[in-house]
Amino acid sequence: MSDLYTFENEQYRRTYWHTCSHVLAQAVKRLWPETKLAIGPSIDNGFYYDLDSEETFTPEDLEKIEAEMRKICKEKLKLERFELPREEAVKFMEEKGEPYKVELINDLPEDAVISFYKQGDFTDLCAGPHLDSTGRIKGNAIKLTACNAAYWRGDSSRKQLQRIYGVAFPKKEELDEYLKQQEEALKRDHNKIGRELEYFTTVDVIGQGLPILLPKGARTIQTLQRWVEDEEQKRGYLLTKTPYMAKRELYKISGHWDHYLDGMFVLGDPDDYTKECFALRPMTCPFQYQVFLNRGRSYRDLPMRLGETSTLFRNEDSGEMHGLIRVRQFTISEGHLVLRPEQLEEEFKGCLDLAKYCLGTVGLLDKCTFRFSQWDPANPNNKYEGTAEQWDEAQSVMGQILDDLDVHYTVGIDEAAFYGPKLDIQYKNVFGKEDTLVTIQIDMLLAKQFGMEYVDADGQKKTPYIIHRTSLGCYERTLAYLLEEYAGALPTWMAPEQVRILPITDRAAEYSVKLQKELFSQGFRVEVDERNEKIGKKIREAQLEKVPYMLVVGDKEVENGQVAVRHRAEGDLGVMSVPEFAALLKNVVDTKAKK
Amino acid sequence: MSDLYTFENEQYRRTYWHTCSHVLAQAVKRLWPETKLAIGPSIDNGFYYDLDSEETFTPEDLEKIEAEMRKICKEKLKLERFELPREEAVKFMEEKGEPYKVELINDLPEDAVISFYKQGDFTDLCAGPHLDSTGRIKGNAIKLTACNAAYWRGDSSRKQLQRIYGVAFPKKEELDEYLKQQEEALKRDHNKIGRELEYFTTVDVIGQGLPILLPKGARTIQTLQRWVEDEEQKRGYLLTKTPYMAKRELYKISGHWDHYLDGMFVLGDPDDYTKECFALRPMTCPFQYQVFLNRGRSYRDLPMRLGETSTLFRNEDSGEMHGLIRVRQFTISEGHLVLRPEQLEEEFKGCLDLAKYCLGTVGLLDKCTFRFSQWDPANPNNKYEGTAEQWDEAQSVMGQILDDLDVHYTVGIDEAAFYGPKLDIQYKNVFGKEDTLVTIQIDMLLAKQFGMEYVDADGQKKTPYIIHRTSLGCYERTLAYLLEEYAGALPTWMAPEQVRILPITDRAAEYSVKLQKELFSQGFRVEVDERNEKIGKKIREAQLEKVPYMLVVGDKEVENGQVAVRHRAEGDLGVMSVPEFAALLKNVVDTKAKK
Repeated sequence: MSDLYTFENEQYRRTYWHTCSHVLAQAVKRLWPETKLAIGPSIDNGFYYDLDSEETFTPEDLEKIEAEMRKICKEKLKLERFELPREEAVKFMEEKGEPYKVELINDLPEDAVISFYKQGDFTDLCAGPHLDSTGRIKGNAIKLTACNAAYWRGDSSRKQLQRIYGVAFPKKEELDEYLKQQEEALKRDHNKIGRELEYFTTVDVIGQGLPILLPKGARTIQTLQRWVEDEEQKRGYLLTKTPYMAKRELYKISGHWDHYLDGMFVLGDPDDYTKECFALRPMTCPFQYQVFLNRGRSYRDLPMRLGETSTLFRNEDSGEMHGLIRVRQFTISEGHLVLRPEQLEEEFKGCLDLAKYCLGTVGLLDKCTFRFSQWDPANPNNKYEGTAEQWDEAQSVMGQILDDLDVHYTVGIDEAAFYGPKLDIQYKNVFGKEDTLVTIQIDMLLAKQFGMEYVDADGQKKTPYIIHRTSLGCYERTLAYLLEEYAGALPTWMAPEQVRILPITDRAAEYSVKLQKELFSQGFRVEVDERNEKIGKKIREAQLEKVPYMLVVGDKEVENGQVAVRHRAEGDLGVMSVPEFAALLKNVVDTKAKK
Repeated sequence: MSDLYTFENEQYRRTYWHTCSHVLAQAVKRLWPETKLAIGPSIDNGFYYDLDSEETFTPEDLEKIEAEMRKICKEKLKLERFELPREEAVKFMEEKGEPYKVELINDLPEDAVISFYKQGDFTDLCAGPHLDSTGRIKGNAIKLTACNAAYWRGDSSRKQLQRIYGVAFPKKEELDEYLKQQEEALKRDHNKIGRELEYFTTVDVIGQGLPILLPKGARTIQTLQRWVEDEEQKRGYLLTKTPYMAKRELYKISGHWDHYLDGMFVLGDPDDYTKECFALRPMTCPFQYQVFLNRGRSYRDLPMRLGETSTLFRNEDSGEMHGLIRVRQFTISEGHLVLRPEQLEEEFKGCLDLAKYCLGTVGLLDKCTFRFSQWDPANPNNKYEGTAEQWDEAQSVMGQILDDLDVHYTVGIDEAAFYGPKLDIQYKNVFGKEDTLVTIQIDMLLAKQFGMEYVDADGQKKTPYIIHRTSLGCYERTLAYLLEEYAGALPTWMAPEQVRILPITDRAAEYSVKLQKELFSQGFRVEVDERNEKIGKKIREAQLEKVPYMLVVGDKEVENGQVAVRHRAEGDLGVMSVPEFAALLKNVVDTKAKK
């Protein structure tokens, strides 16, 4: 049982960090006694406390707070839990001048146990658990990492508070190691370099989670999108283009209205049935099914593989937004395969093969992990459509297929879609936060709800199975992971600017424009740096902007019809003729080389 | 003045049709006296009357009504106008049992003149004008063309009525000629053949004006879209990808909130300022400007040509929807050029050249007309941003440019965008209804509102001009016009299926699949008709589905590695080797031939 009390144990780590958040609050109250406390939980990678203070906390303030926290740790204060009846609890917090705590208590369910934790001069409303003493925390291995604005209860109509983030470890060396990793991660953080390299931006007047893809980001996504569309066509997919919104009635049939309404953007009043009510789509399924439903279908039409470069909308919380990874609108290679039951394994295999091909080609597959996302039989909770029997069948079929295909997966309980189990291909960003990149789902329910049928070889009308799937997943998220994986130096085939021509002289400048046209006509993306700057500066800037190939052109090169080629990673590749360089570049692009 | 009373005069024609609508209502009231009358205006191509009746009008009923209308014309009833004070008017219509007319009277402004027109046993609330006698209408040149559902006042929460459409001419031959033209038009009507050929469909549960592009429609639009994106890149455009929604605040700056709110889909309550409120975008401008605003700009960055395959949303009335031409969501090659003032003419010329190139290549240019859309100085009505001076300047600059470029245009008063004058390239559908296909607009206002600036060569900060423009316009509408122009037989380069291989024998079937792969790998869209059907039937069906090239393959062709080639319009092209056919096809596709 000893591993229960080591830092590797998530529950212990969470408890450690939760106590740290109390120490943080105690330190702030000692330094600025007028501060009002909101909430202070542990999170995946540390802890925070939301505070209402006249003081705007500066980096210097954070250092002061850290020092006070170290003191509190040295004081080895015992943590003691006690309970109070509701009225006394309210009175207690009122006397301490903590209005947010009073609001929290008032919002607790009637039968809730109201508990407090006390450590020395500090007491906080808290459900625990906690370490038994502040002495268990290593004072010099605490780091307050940031102070951001945060709305009380995440509600932008309520008061804006200050959120101080921190992290802590049992040893100073572990903290140093962590901070070093974070610094390295920051250099690859797509949310930083993606903006610096001008792949995307966000602006307040448009809104959070609605990134603007600048020309470089738009061009790379265009390249990926065309490649995926073409690959799908090669594999027998039919392209569709379906609307981004529909009437409430469609989502009633699909089950989204009952199971997914909170995640949807609704146009109009969802409860006013005297008026037409539209909602933006969070998924493509019920729209793409209409293509199947357009006319009578026979077994000969199956498998019908439908693909679409689809735009989806999800009404996520402002607090959840993160760069290109968590957004409110995204583009995705979404598709649905309508099948005879006996085609399920073969087609599932085809989907997995396509996803692996796509992820492998862009260079993300090696770091992917697989999760078999299932429903929660103990707690269906109106979250899922269908009966236990239907779920058992779908999950056992899917389990069998995954075993047959030798897929190594972890199981995620209560992670399924509301209509069926999923194979999720997961990826972690530079900070270790995991999200789903690609998903393949088996659905034995929705075809029936939409009245989808086919006439089988025996003349009988039958209900098909459906696979929901993506090839490369959401393009915005994929671009984010690619920027992080390659630290901004995207492989040439998907780089927005593949070649930059750097003329040294005026004469070379003219030649460079001609050369640009020639390479452009061969399908390459080429720019010319015509500025009147030293060649060293031009090269340095092209390097910083991660342009794969630089062609230095001086008078000699013009005379000989040559170019001096430089690769951003490989350095000088020597002088070669234009056709030689074009052939080299064509090979790198055609083979989708990872350089 | 005599031309005032000929049918070529629009006002006379409208008056003629308006009186026809009264004759129609009179005939219905004679046949079904319980019918309640709603409204009955003239329209661009005839007239209608909205009726509330227990009877569901059948084609046979329409014939009965036509016969009664002929009788009324023969009766040569005088039309007499009279006025009544409001109370008497209401009483009069109540006594006649016409609740819709009562509602109309009640909604009239207080000082309105309330007039009626009486002809024999029939009186209608009406502002006129009318012919002086039903005898002026040629009874045997009236045709009732359709009966559709229509909501009272176009409001889907009100009662559903029946709308009887009709048309009439002074001569029977003119009616016959018109009906023949209509019949021809129907054969090309994209709303009919586009559905039959499975380019698109619509479904009730998704909603009106939200077409589903089936695989054929999606593929053609993909082809057009890639071609336009590539052409724009060739012409120095930078691709962008911006979000489809934004907060109210963005539209406040752009002026859409004040001038365009009725046409927008709003998510949430537009008047509740305690909450974030988003709206779907009706135009791309304020989003694409953010790309310019991403960093400081100098004169060297201009002209900055931004292009995007953009999705837009317009909250149009249900009654306005028409196939792929009038929709609520559409895809458009939208772009904005940010310019120094002295670049305006050159860049405007470039935009016009691009639009003409695109329209000419797809084959629509010859039938396009040009309209110089201006504001209405007599009636700015809060519809327009800016001062009279600014409008005068923008319109005089644009007029000069159009004259310099020798563009022959008509002037449309009160047809401008709220921020500036437009050159609209107009097109008529098969029924003669005109819409805008492409637009090029000059905007001297919005850059200032968004604080867009550049540092000029003289070091001064200046505000740029902006051109708003499209290359090919809305893809859905373009596809509609293309289907009508080519009666469904789209040119090979944009046809969703370019080649269908028709094997005669089993052995040929195997060879056909190989052949398909070979042609596919060369970039062509090829299907195989593997069914066990007679070759005659296969050819007939491929013809009906307007597939450009059919390759008939029998055992002899397999042996010789040849194909027997048939073109849907040119017929038999003889037997040739596969490379020969591939070369022929490549030439047709590469040159974007109109066959």
